Amino acid sequence: MAKTPETEHPVKAFGYAATDTSGSFSPFKFSRRATGETDVQLKVLYCGVCHSDLHMAKNEWGFTQYPLVPGHEIVGYVPHQVVTEVGSKVEKVKVGDKVGVGVLVGSCRQCDQCTNDLENYCPKQIQTYGFPYLDGTINRGGYSNIMVADEHFIIRWPDNFPLDAGGPLLCAGITTYSPLRYFGLDKPGLRIGINGLGGLGHVAVKFAKAFGTKVTVISTSLSKKKEAIERLGVDEFLVSRDPEQMQAAVGTLDGIIDTVSASHPVVPLLSLLKPNGKLIVVGAPEAPLQLPVFTLIQGRKTIAGSGIGGMKETQEMIDFAAKNNILADVEVIPIDYINTAMDRLLKSDVKYRFVIDVENSLKPE
Amino acid sequence: MAKTPETEHPVKAFGYAATDTSGSFSPFKFSRRATGETDVQLKVLYCGVCHSDLHMAKNEWGFTQYPLVPGHEIVGYVPHQVVTEVGSKVEKVKVGDKVGVGVLVGSCRQCDQCTNDLENYCPKQIQTYGFPYLDGTINRGGYSNIMVADEHFIIRWPDNFPLDAGGPLLCAGITTYSPLRYFGLDKPGLRIGINGLGGLGHVAVKFAKAFGTKVTVISTSLSKKKEAIERLGVDEFLVSRDPEQMQAAVGTLDGIIDTVSASHPVVPLLSLLKPNGKLIVVGAPEAPLQLPVFTLIQGRKTIAGSGIGGMKETQEMIDFAAKNNILADVEVIPIDYINTAMDRLLKSDVKYRFVIDVENSLKPE
Repeated sequence: MAKTPETEHPVKAFGYAATDTSGSFSPFKFSRRATGETDVQLKVLYCGVCHSDLHMAKNEWGFTQYPLVPGHEIVGYVPHQVVTEVGSKVEKVKVGDKVGVGVLVGSCRQCDQCTNDLENYCPKQIQTYGFPYLDGTINRGGYSNIMVADEHFIIRWPDNFPLDAGGPLLCAGITTYSPLRYFGLDKPGLRIGINGLGGLGHVAVKFAKAFGTKVTVISTSLSKKKEAIERLGVDEFLVSRDPEQMQAAVGTLDGIIDTVSASHPVVPLLSLLKPNGKLIVVGAPEAPLQLPVFTLIQGRKTIAGSGIGGMKETQEMIDFAAKNNILADVEVIPIDYINTAMDRLLKSDVKYRFVIDVENSLKPE
Repeated sequence: MAKTPETEHPVKAFGYAATDTSGSFSPFKFSRRATGETDVQLKVLYCGVCHSDLHMAKNEWGFTQYPLVPGHEIVGYVPHQVVTEVGSKVEKVKVGDKVGVGVLVGSCRQCDQCTNDLENYCPKQIQTYGFPYLDGTINRGGYSNIMVADEHFIIRWPDNFPLDAGGPLLCAGITTYSPLRYFGLDKPGLRIGINGLGGLGHVAVKFAKAFGTKVTVISTSLSKKKEAIERLGVDEFLVSRDPEQMQAAVGTLDGIIDTVSASHPVVPLLSLLKPNGKLIVVGAPEAPLQLPVFTLIQGRKTIAGSGIGGMKETQEMIDFAAKNNILADVEVIPIDYINTAMDRLLKSDVKYRFVIDVENSLKPE
């Protein structure tokens, strides 16, 4: 008999899956592999809802394999009911520890990227859901009761660091922390723009502020201004649709983290940069950017991409966040609210990240 | 009576000018300003022919004011017939010295860029020809018998460094030297790609080799391979129209200097880069680049622009070239050959830079 999601592995699991391009989720029974020598099995407590989950659920990037169980902002702990659930060679964590799993669960571990702690740029990286694992079965993410991952891809959770509001840092946090660090946009006094104030953007603001930079939020929506300034401590707020405001800010920023994944023009953003300024793209619009070369040459400007971070840097980011009390602003939801949440996410109607309370809302059918 | 090019300044001058969008050149009488306190007047000996001259002559960038006297790879010497030709406050050079003038003859001297030796990114920079000078008159370049410039924009010419083959370094040289340095692509052992083997590209190869990097030339034309390898010492030669060659070279380069000013796809170039690789654009195609964001995010790749260099770096580049015996490969032409030269330049039929022998071929009518 052909193997099914429910029978391909020995450990029973359940969660929520999208089954077609409608992107609608429903309860789903599947299975997880037995805990290998270097594996860690964890009970999922919370899982953040990333915009990627929505893109993938609707197959907007063209490579989704259904049924899809998303979720790569996973926080849980290594359960202590069954001692075999930490592999015999695991050194990083022990039963009872709190841990996180982010966007990656595998990479080749041998290439130049892997040996330089940049597993996120390994050409053979294996993402947490929707990608085939080493055994050929399709990975399933944190919209589920249990998770298993090699310890190399396990993040140790700092003591007393909140699980619900900390979870989104495993994707949204590292996605913005890494480019701020790598591209030198983490120096006190620099003027940093954050384009888009959503799940990624609001976390980017918090890291940029923690680094001591002056932060300008660029947004299509004036309605976010008051909160951005009063609660997030943003120094300036630019409405990108207001030509006068944008003109007045030309040449004022050292760098911009562009978190917007809807198609948008980049020339106005490049114009905001000082000479030698850097525009770092972390959102992924489907359509190619239209990039006039003169706007780069005049002022030696850079446009670069950045995608999450390596495991070492992800741990560093979480430890930095714990030390500096950086958390995502979250709306905690039960898992059966996920379809409504996705509709609201599409309308940017969330401040700023949904997090599923998996432990208390996901029950076996 | 309204001032004309011939009467607006006190010093009689003559050269060759383009007078309409046909881009055709003919003899032209005009005038130069009197030598100011900080000015240096020089007799033009040689002037390189840059592709920009052709773009400008035909008004392809849309801001040409006719008549246009191009030329920004100017080498000459401060003549000694008339002692007033070096301003009273000039300290950098004396009568009889050999000097060069490149792309810039002015900038604000006060902004952050100017005070950091980056006059080339000053928003008020004044280019050597076709731009208005401080007095509102239009600058005229080195396709002419004499030149005048503020000493800040004068390059001291190294002893015994050839004038004809050295001249093109004032634009082509600094345009490629500066990004190799600034973007860290000057480290021995790095693998550097040079896209396009023309006026800029062949000089880029020479600097990259002098820095100790391994150089790959990327070209549409297989016909340039033999010479590139045998004479320029290029390590690898990729024909960009050969999908198999391009595929085999994916992920092998640390950086690419893209010198091609005709429209061309950038995705194949980005594919050649290793993770963290940098594509530096120094040619200026008219149409915007089509840039899929995924190609940047996967591998944290950078695309940046770079335009010439500041005065300090231009002097450093010329001194480095003299020390390392780096010269452009030139075809020296009389000035009345310029229209034929432009036709040939348009067809890339020159190895690799035309240089006008101004002293011996430009005669008053």
